[in-house]
Amino acid sequence: MGLTEFREHDPFAPIVYSYPGVTLLHEERSPFQAISVLEHPRFGKILTLDGVVQLTEWDEFFYHEMLVHPAMHAHPDPKEVLIIGGGDGGSLREALKHSSVERVTMAEIDERVVEVSKRFFPTLNVGFSHPKANVVHTDGVKLVEEAAPTYDIIIIDSTDPVGPAEGLFASSFYQAAYGALKPGGILVAQTESLLFHSSIVQDVQQRLRDIFPIVDCYTQALATYAGNWWTFSIASKSHDPRRPQAGKRIKARYYSAQVHRKAFLTRALYQRLLNGTLGW
Amino acid sequence: MGLTEFREHDPFAPIVYSYPGVTLLHEERSPFQAISVLEHPRFGKILTLDGVVQLTEWDEFFYHEMLVHPAMHAHPDPKEVLIIGGGDGGSLREALKHSSVERVTMAEIDERVVEVSKRFFPTLNVGFSHPKANVVHTDGVKLVEEAAPTYDIIIIDSTDPVGPAEGLFASSFYQAAYGALKPGGILVAQTESLLFHSSIVQDVQQRLRDIFPIVDCYTQALATYAGNWWTFSIASKSHDPRRPQAGKRIKARYYSAQVHRKAFLTRALYQRLLNGTLGW
Repeated sequence: MGLTEFREHDPFAPIVYSYPGVTLLHEERSPFQAISVLEHPRFGKILTLDGVVQLTEWDEFFYHEMLVHPAMHAHPDPKEVLIIGGGDGGSLREALKHSSVERVTMAEIDERVVEVSKRFFPTLNVGFSHPKANVVHTDGVKLVEEAAPTYDIIIIDSTDPVGPAEGLFASSFYQAAYGALKPGGILVAQTESLLFHSSIVQDVQQRLRDIFPIVDCYTQALATYAGNWWTFSIASKSHDPRRPQAGKRIKARYYSAQVHRKAFLTRALYQRLLNGTLGW
Repeated sequence: MGLTEFREHDPFAPIVYSYPGVTLLHEERSPFQAISVLEHPRFGKILTLDGVVQLTEWDEFFYHEMLVHPAMHAHPDPKEVLIIGGGDGGSLREALKHSSVERVTMAEIDERVVEVSKRFFPTLNVGFSHPKANVVHTDGVKLVEEAAPTYDIIIIDSTDPVGPAEGLFASSFYQAAYGALKPGGILVAQTESLLFHSSIVQDVQQRLRDIFPIVDCYTQALATYAGNWWTFSIASKSHDPRRPQAGKRIKARYYSAQVHRKAFLTRALYQRLLNGTLGW
């Protein structure tokens, strides 16, 4: 009938999202997680990991553009980029739009996610065989711990802080990431919902502030992530993350320098986030 | 057990929201709609109309502050305010915070919503017996059609554009509202999700632009409304809606002049909304 419903199993969300009208195209269990691909009449194909929606073809560009472009625009000349996670390829696609980039290393621990994207997500998987792309299937934490100061940008495109991604929210990882960044380097991470998980956001911000001189937070509404007022935490060695550098030209569906500036929390709200006094 | 689940019946949303862990405190059928009150361990009390969540005690302030304060701040001296709908009292509570206000008329067609708020929502129902409040149970469309130019601000705090609220999205209503506003008057309305209903937002904007010289759109992420990147359409006879007037002092949990400025769509996105070229 095609009217099967997909019901999310998101341990982090007090509201459960269901998608009526889906058909199941694929499911498998990798060594790391359950992977499935659904088809929905409005959202197109949907990728889920352990029962949680990672992206829909319809709205993934909001997430990927807003994860990647603010850091890439705050840096005057990003050449070496590291993506941790991001196996669907969306962040890689966006990073490769920057002409300054010489290499994007993508460390996705679960090779099966990349293979599933290659098979099902033609609008996301466009970067895997790009000459500047270097896709490795290794633990991002270990890669960062062993890296010399190599990267201008580190993008943490992870699942929720439970299971495979837990280590990507730890102080020790942020310390290693600082060491793997060149002078002027910038780290950015998806850090859950400002509405449902503000204490996670606060914790991440404090951990980053113990290590980086400049730390900030911006948001984007995402309809298909429960909690939906999504945060991105950005930490910089010297450049102001709020200020997009002039003269960059990329093709985006949503991101712009104006969107970039508006996306950051007001200074007052940011202070309340740090103090734990947002009041929700 | 207290683990009953409330599942929304929202004809407008391709994602269905469910709230596990609720208990039902009250339900009734008024002449206009089904009304229920639920209790949730995180969201507190929840008001639903015809199976759609209208507010939760936990996050209603985002919606009510962002519906009311931008218009009230863009106007230099709002004295006469009309709220259409808003039976829970949240918009009335916010409007009464402005010291310039002499009277707030609230036209809620369904008296039962007001009575339910009086019984269950102590943080929302605070304005009903305020000396400046004038609560009437009449059809807002009719009230506006018959009004002389009386109001500085008209706030349309309606349900979705189906059932009782349908007429509040029509051109003829906006024309009447223009006539009921004094010179310098401002109208603001909740106009659904920028993600799920951008064509509704576009339609409303076009209807308003046929009548008002200045029309604009701002947004707020709302976790408990499906589609969640919520729009507010604002139409003004002369004052720039993007510019909060100086010198106002109200106590808000979220709204500020900075939040006000950031909430408006970038000019480029706004143009794409009007052109129907948002691309989602």
